[in-house]
Amino acid sequence: MILLGTDIGGSSVKLALIDSDDGCRITARGSFPFDGQPAEEMCLQIRGAADEMLAEAGLNNGDIKGVGVCVPGNIDKDRSTVVNAYNLGFHNVPLKALVSECFPGREVSLMNDADAAALAEYRAGALEGCENSILLTLGTGLGAGLILGGKIFLGGCGRGFELGHVPFRNGGDPCTCGLKGCMERYVSASRLARDGARELGDTFGTARAVTDAARAGNKTACRLLDDYIEDLSDAIAGICNMFDPERIAVGGGLSAAGEILFAPLTDLVERKNFYRARYEIVPARFLNDAGVLGAALSVCLTNA
Amino acid sequence: MILLGTDIGGSSVKLALIDSDDGCRITARGSFPFDGQPAEEMCLQIRGAADEMLAEAGLNNGDIKGVGVCVPGNIDKDRSTVVNAYNLGFHNVPLKALVSECFPGREVSLMNDADAAALAEYRAGALEGCENSILLTLGTGLGAGLILGGKIFLGGCGRGFELGHVPFRNGGDPCTCGLKGCMERYVSASRLARDGARELGDTFGTARAVTDAARAGNKTACRLLDDYIEDLSDAIAGICNMFDPERIAVGGGLSAAGEILFAPLTDLVERKNFYRARYEIVPARFLNDAGVLGAALSVCLTNA
Repeated sequence: MILLGTDIGGSSVKLALIDSDDGCRITARGSFPFDGQPAEEMCLQIRGAADEMLAEAGLNNGDIKGVGVCVPGNIDKDRSTVVNAYNLGFHNVPLKALVSECFPGREVSLMNDADAAALAEYRAGALEGCENSILLTLGTGLGAGLILGGKIFLGGCGRGFELGHVPFRNGGDPCTCGLKGCMERYVSASRLARDGARELGDTFGTARAVTDAARAGNKTACRLLDDYIEDLSDAIAGICNMFDPERIAVGGGLSAAGEILFAPLTDLVERKNFYRARYEIVPARFLNDAGVLGAALSVCLTNA
Repeated sequence: MILLGTDIGGSSVKLALIDSDDGCRITARGSFPFDGQPAEEMCLQIRGAADEMLAEAGLNNGDIKGVGVCVPGNIDKDRSTVVNAYNLGFHNVPLKALVSECFPGREVSLMNDADAAALAEYRAGALEGCENSILLTLGTGLGAGLILGGKIFLGGCGRGFELGHVPFRNGGDPCTCGLKGCMERYVSASRLARDGARELGDTFGTARAVTDAARAGNKTACRLLDDYIEDLSDAIAGICNMFDPERIAVGGGLSAAGEILFAPLTDLVERKNFYRARYEIVPARFLNDAGVLGAALSVCLTNA
């Protein structure tokens, strides 16, 4: 079955055609810039880009079973309206209906991007077969998608799963959400990048540069990475105490850091969780494709 | 249907006969001291105490449909063995089998005591009708039971739901579990009692004494209560961000504190949760009876 996945981000809209019968393979890709155009206009552009991709693949719009869309923000319980997506400037936008108008007769599904990424990992990636598992995406912020009983958990009242803004350090650093000490200020890749820029200089202003320097034996970089892993292991040990997941996948740029991150992290989480269990912490499979893939797959789900 | 509920605590074993057809009413009570006797001996005492209660009620052992037991500790995934209950000195005790030997032919169910209390509140108390909700028991420690989709959540791998030992304050106070900064060190009733004893003297060494003094206008007590509510609201806002529950019930001694606790707590949680939603935070219904009631009700559940 052919599905269209669409990942709306702060600077671009990414599209992909997915063949869900063939190991969830991406058969075509597209994208166009997003710079604040109104949602109606953006939806027409999605249709235009999709038609181009379909034409190149020798297909037409009727071959698409459904259209899945994910956004970096809150959606309502019915999964029809974007309540708040600050990076897009979307507030109370009935996005499902707008997309449906551009794809008449097609099924349309709307999801939060972190939930979509977790769905992709669960259906075809690092969380495959793990009915109780979690994806943590360590990037600018902390995205998290939780699988419980084989379903994406969208909150008891449907508001979502906002791990990134759990109060983590009382009176801590100010967060973009207006509060202080949120978990994502301490465990996102940005935190390590900020630390690197401050202590090692601007050329070390990425998480990758700090982990590379640590691997090369730079003492300061090793200390910054240790401090970061200390906080990240607190966050993950708490997740283990609460959700007791079969597996934890780590996405975002840091997922490529290798053993210098995953080995001490796994050890510390074992020492810090209440059960003293050794939880499996693995890199995510899909990086930039997780959103389009999960959005597309969400079309087929009754609950998510 | 008549059920026997048994709540094994660090100093006593409480028993109750429950009529599950009559609003989960407790029809008889019993108890005997627990001071470290072996589990086999304790089970024989449970049978003896049950027989006395039944005889007084004009019933006999055959009238009991099942026996539910709850303990302050971890149980295994099959809910047959107490893995660790430090206050009881029980480690890897096959308690379900031991109870079954004393009650041949009866159904026997084993549960963690916080989960049992949540089940009681969900089935017949403050969480009735709330399929996604949580009970926080603020006592010596922090007990928590989570209802998700109308079922007690026992962890993705069955290890439990140990909210009390979620890392909460990095490098914070030492906890009984061997780690530092666990959530229960900051939000249990004991924390407020410790603060009271330290700043107001030994006669203020209970949570009740501090809330009473705050209600009477004692400035120090007001400050201690404010500090406590600040931490408790951090914990509950995090719970709201993750679980988005329909309702939160607060059990333990502090559940009787009234508006001086619940009003500022509800306001702060509204300001601190990501959705800025006003979550319903209510006192639990069952206090000392929650354990026996939930243990008894667990006999009838297929999943919990």
